[in-house]
Amino acid sequence: MPDHFADSLIARTRELGHPLCAGLDPHLPLIPPLFRRASMAPADPATAEAVEAFVLAALDRLAAHVAVVKPQSAFFELLGWRGVQALERVVEQARLAGCLVILDAKRGDIGTTAAAYAGCLDDSAPMQVDALTVNPYLGRDTLAPFVEAARAHGRGVFVLTKTSNAGSADLQDRLIDGTPLYAHVAGGLAETAAALRGPATGWSSYGIVAGATHPAEHERLRTALPHTLFLVPGYGAQGGSAADAVRGFVAGPNGREGGVVSSSRALLFPPDGHTDDLRTWERAIDAAIERAVHELGEAVA
Amino acid sequence: MPDHFADSLIARTRELGHPLCAGLDPHLPLIPPLFRRASMAPADPATAEAVEAFVLAALDRLAAHVAVVKPQSAFFELLGWRGVQALERVVEQARLAGCLVILDAKRGDIGTTAAAYAGCLDDSAPMQVDALTVNPYLGRDTLAPFVEAARAHGRGVFVLTKTSNAGSADLQDRLIDGTPLYAHVAGGLAETAAALRGPATGWSSYGIVAGATHPAEHERLRTALPHTLFLVPGYGAQGGSAADAVRGFVAGPNGREGGVVSSSRALLFPPDGHTDDLRTWERAIDAAIERAVHELGEAVA
Repeated sequence: MPDHFADSLIARTRELGHPLCAGLDPHLPLIPPLFRRASMAPADPATAEAVEAFVLAALDRLAAHVAVVKPQSAFFELLGWRGVQALERVVEQARLAGCLVILDAKRGDIGTTAAAYAGCLDDSAPMQVDALTVNPYLGRDTLAPFVEAARAHGRGVFVLTKTSNAGSADLQDRLIDGTPLYAHVAGGLAETAAALRGPATGWSSYGIVAGATHPAEHERLRTALPHTLFLVPGYGAQGGSAADAVRGFVAGPNGREGGVVSSSRALLFPPDGHTDDLRTWERAIDAAIERAVHELGEAVA
Repeated sequence: MPDHFADSLIARTRELGHPLCAGLDPHLPLIPPLFRRASMAPADPATAEAVEAFVLAALDRLAAHVAVVKPQSAFFELLGWRGVQALERVVEQARLAGCLVILDAKRGDIGTTAAAYAGCLDDSAPMQVDALTVNPYLGRDTLAPFVEAARAHGRGVFVLTKTSNAGSADLQDRLIDGTPLYAHVAGGLAETAAALRGPATGWSSYGIVAGATHPAEHERLRTALPHTLFLVPGYGAQGGSAADAVRGFVAGPNGREGGVVSSSRALLFPPDGHTDDLRTWERAIDAAIERAVHELGEAVA
């Protein structure tokens, strides 16, 4: 892999002309008949096999069209160690296919425990990913081991800042000295973000998660963090438009840039992909990719 | 397993006369020579075997003396799917030995993803635990799937509120309308906590994590949440005394009660347990358990 996560990511999105990140969220009930097995119960070993086959087949159609994929750890963990084994194979296959991998695991813990979670950013890990999502509630000292691993191994970290769900208002929008908590979180990342800027593009590998459902907040966040990559979920199924999703992007050499926009359900589970016919499924997935690529390409043009 | 997590937990701690929870945190560098293998590299399959053998041996000495064990997911995940398989075996063995199991995984995500993480509280999961630690940063709607699973299956949830690390001040102590954020988090749990009280003891299965290193805050938290179990880390290695750790406990029929106090490093890695002699190791672990049991027993007497 190249040396600097943000440089690699931005180089590839420039090449492709769009910031689409394919979310790999294998919701069990949505997996199409083509890939389903008898029970689909989480504890049934055949379920992990079905999930792996489905995600690898989707990846095979997606990989050439996106800079990055974002597997959601929860859906694999639900299946026990066999699910984690499937996740490892998906991650390995995605990287072999030339995609960067952001593991969406929203980890966070203290001291040596955080360091253990940061292991997946380390060259010695059994499962290596290019970036990881993390939760800031425990404080800045708990983010340090992730930053350290990212710095040492050229990887990336995305800190949850303003999430896409309605309930994000409960804590993230609470005012502290007149400023919402999420903006305090962002402010606390600025110095380290500046230190993790890439030599080629100037973008930082210390990113944030900022939901497409709150576009107004993106401008505030961009001002606070001028060089930080935004990982933007909530585009598509959750209701954020393509224009909303790239609100925090800025002018670059090949259109607006500054992060990636994640779509999962719309890509993996288009309605016409709920079939047991391989060719029908392939056409449905290809069309879903084309729609998202086109829409996001226009939004950054 | 019995029907209500808090009832089961409190019944057992009353019987034992102390609130010790054994933290199962297999830090790789600390595993004693007796259990080490050649490389101890995270990606080496033999490392997961060594970790499993070590934790099961410790569990074998601990299980009869504690109501509950708390495996730390990060140290198992670090080893990839083989580590998760080891974790599953540890959890299964602990429950067979009559311990309740709190999985310390500090999960948190939105919507159906949170529901997938809550799967481990479900009777159909490949790995079933009695309770799970979760992170509140994403908002109350993201805690709901965990509460729902706990309610449906008689399990427990512990919400990170005031953590034991120094950096917990960064966000958790910030004042909102004159009240620290952690107290806002606690206040937001009160109604649901009341709804999850057990018929036998009145204690609620909707708990919080409150570090032993901040005893003054425990009184405030107890006032806000009179029936909530406190999971108290930070006792021992992190510097909190036994008296500090039980500051939020209240009078019960057999001493003070209201939660569990977790110790990991002092129990699993006593200095005289760093040996390659089985009998020496067993004596060291037994003595470490006896010390903690005695100290915490005195603190709640």
